[in-house]
Amino acid sequence: MALINENYLRLSENYFYTEMDKRINAFCVTHPKANVIQLGTGDVSQPLPPAVVSAMTDALNELSQKDTFRGYGPGQGYKFLREKIVKDYQTHGVSLSTEEVFVSDGAKTDAANIGHIFGRDNIIAITDPVYPVYENATIMSGRAGYHNENGKWSNIVYLNCLAENGFKPVIPSEKIDVIYLCYPNNPTGTVLTRQELKVWVDYALENHSLIIYDGAYEAYITEKDVPHSIYEIKGAKKVAVEIRSFSKTAGFTGLRCSYTIVPKDLIAFTSEGEKVQLNRLWMRRQTTCFNGNSYIVQRGAEAVFSKEGRKQVNETVQYYLTNAGIIRDELRNLGFEVYGGVNSPYVWAKTKNGEESWSFFQRMLCEINVVSTPGVGFGPNGEGYTRFSGFNSRENTMEAVERMKNWR
Amino acid sequence: MALINENYLRLSENYFYTEMDKRINAFCVTHPKANVIQLGTGDVSQPLPPAVVSAMTDALNELSQKDTFRGYGPGQGYKFLREKIVKDYQTHGVSLSTEEVFVSDGAKTDAANIGHIFGRDNIIAITDPVYPVYENATIMSGRAGYHNENGKWSNIVYLNCLAENGFKPVIPSEKIDVIYLCYPNNPTGTVLTRQELKVWVDYALENHSLIIYDGAYEAYITEKDVPHSIYEIKGAKKVAVEIRSFSKTAGFTGLRCSYTIVPKDLIAFTSEGEKVQLNRLWMRRQTTCFNGNSYIVQRGAEAVFSKEGRKQVNETVQYYLTNAGIIRDELRNLGFEVYGGVNSPYVWAKTKNGEESWSFFQRMLCEINVVSTPGVGFGPNGEGYTRFSGFNSRENTMEAVERMKNWR
Repeated sequence: MALINENYLRLSENYFYTEMDKRINAFCVTHPKANVIQLGTGDVSQPLPPAVVSAMTDALNELSQKDTFRGYGPGQGYKFLREKIVKDYQTHGVSLSTEEVFVSDGAKTDAANIGHIFGRDNIIAITDPVYPVYENATIMSGRAGYHNENGKWSNIVYLNCLAENGFKPVIPSEKIDVIYLCYPNNPTGTVLTRQELKVWVDYALENHSLIIYDGAYEAYITEKDVPHSIYEIKGAKKVAVEIRSFSKTAGFTGLRCSYTIVPKDLIAFTSEGEKVQLNRLWMRRQTTCFNGNSYIVQRGAEAVFSKEGRKQVNETVQYYLTNAGIIRDELRNLGFEVYGGVNSPYVWAKTKNGEESWSFFQRMLCEINVVSTPGVGFGPNGEGYTRFSGFNSRENTMEAVERMKNWR
Repeated sequence: MALINENYLRLSENYFYTEMDKRINAFCVTHPKANVIQLGTGDVSQPLPPAVVSAMTDALNELSQKDTFRGYGPGQGYKFLREKIVKDYQTHGVSLSTEEVFVSDGAKTDAANIGHIFGRDNIIAITDPVYPVYENATIMSGRAGYHNENGKWSNIVYLNCLAENGFKPVIPSEKIDVIYLCYPNNPTGTVLTRQELKVWVDYALENHSLIIYDGAYEAYITEKDVPHSIYEIKGAKKVAVEIRSFSKTAGFTGLRCSYTIVPKDLIAFTSEGEKVQLNRLWMRRQTTCFNGNSYIVQRGAEAVFSKEGRKQVNETVQYYLTNAGIIRDELRNLGFEVYGGVNSPYVWAKTKNGEESWSFFQRMLCEINVVSTPGVGFGPNGEGYTRFSGFNSRENTMEAVERMKNWR
């Protein structure tokens, strides 16, 4: 008799964003004339940079001809791309080898799949609020324990991120084995300074814990004391995996490309305390359960690191940051308490008068046809907050802000 | 203390093909002038069909312009592609809904990841010889038990495929929960007739077992009594997942695209015997741990189903089948016992005088610079066999065959 993984039954029926899309679609179907502006999901709006398009056109041409056709590529990704990534890290003073770089099809994919190389008995820590994938993947893998009445899971350690502490997690009293950190943070748009991140690296070094550092929004960092990579912190190569993406920088949300750094110094343990190199395990996973990302997409990603590519991507990032700034300023003018939007495309705003997240969402959608993401979707501490993103076009952002001005 | 998944330590250091590539590279480095011909791995050699290139060029153009840019797509794949897949099944009398189709980045990926929605305690059955991913994924997930001296795992049920039974598995005496079947078979190139496959579907129906049917080589079927889909067998929708790929037909090995059918009728059980729809679980997995395949690749895959696309793909399949026929005929002339190559790009040959697989591999590589895949890489029953593929060019296939003629 074929048995299911019963942990799946403990998840909510739909992934959070799927649920949100359902509600938006329901509104659009019943209000076909409404011009709904999406400032909710983290999807980008600007077209692919010309440098990327040009490189992909060439790659597609290669695959269309017998003499230059390429079939299976390395499961770890092509060396031409891994070399560019290594060089990019060098600009932040981080020295890696190409064997420490794994190209994949998405930060979400890797953030979820990385758990496969870890034992079942690890205690996982996530922030609250948090990008839902970390918690969902923890539940699916059977590491979450049971669901408490307060909406939290018994075996997950929640690092409270509250307005009082600037939405920055503090070291918990419980011992934790694996810690997901995402900075610049999704959803709050806040950052950790070098000094603040060092506290976590030191904790991990001392406790043989491991940090999964999601740096998907690294390109949005504008302030000097904010590290671009966790490996800028001494000792981090021994305790951290870092995940990055081309989605929010070069517009790859529909193309799919990301990379994960698993340093050779990074170790974890068998139950008998024997040290094991995680690089070797992840290599085995990626060459066995994956066949590498598309060649033409990897060529596109490589072009992001060219002179023109960098310039074009930087312009797009500035464009989205400006949008975020417009939203942040207007929300502040309207008397909202706001966070983020400086080193991040996300603006995190507190609703007024303690209004619940979904109520705010529904009200703004129905009354001015603007969508933001309910904070509670990111965890109980997100209740009473909402997330705006700067990823829409300038025109739509301005129009949405205009509507908010005249909204009560 | 971060703990690893110790099941990884029980795998051989390298995935089988990685090991083979290492040996070939070692030979090429020490013999730089050797013109090595690869008739080993299952990688294709012919360029992308023009219809695919044209569709992908258009899609890339869409993504390069603001008005037609697309970001995140559905985790399950675009409906335009799922609709074409559903129509394609109709030509074989199989009726599916688009909600039963999941587009992914590779048959390998899905064959490995599908295990995630199953409970830990299932007894898995695989054929011997077998495509290594099924066994590797079973080991990684902790379902394999311990490794016996005979090279087999205590909790895996091996379905012996031997020359005596035409390399066709027979129902085992042990109860089994999940069964991987791949037909047309990799590596043996053999097939199951409708009647032979029905035996397995009936077994699964009777025992509430589940079949993971890998149909990656379906396009190579030439004989009438061989089913193109397991769903041609009555009742199969209740017991089978089917995986297919664009790799071996439309040359997508480097592009990456596949699809998996999870019928709504398909159920598995909780430990208390409650029925659960697997479609819902896989949907949750694919929307949470994956963000869909690349838009432009999906547009390329869609073009495979156009009139020109079908014609072009069919020509390529015929080309590879002709190569396989050339290899099969020549091996037979040379006195080898051969199988496959009729409904499959693979020819499975028995070495002479009981020579071991790796010895044959090494000798043929060194003496005539031709590569075939050692049968033992597919399991203990593959010892003493070798796999040739028809995927190289006609010229290289002819040249390799010529070398074999003059080889003792």
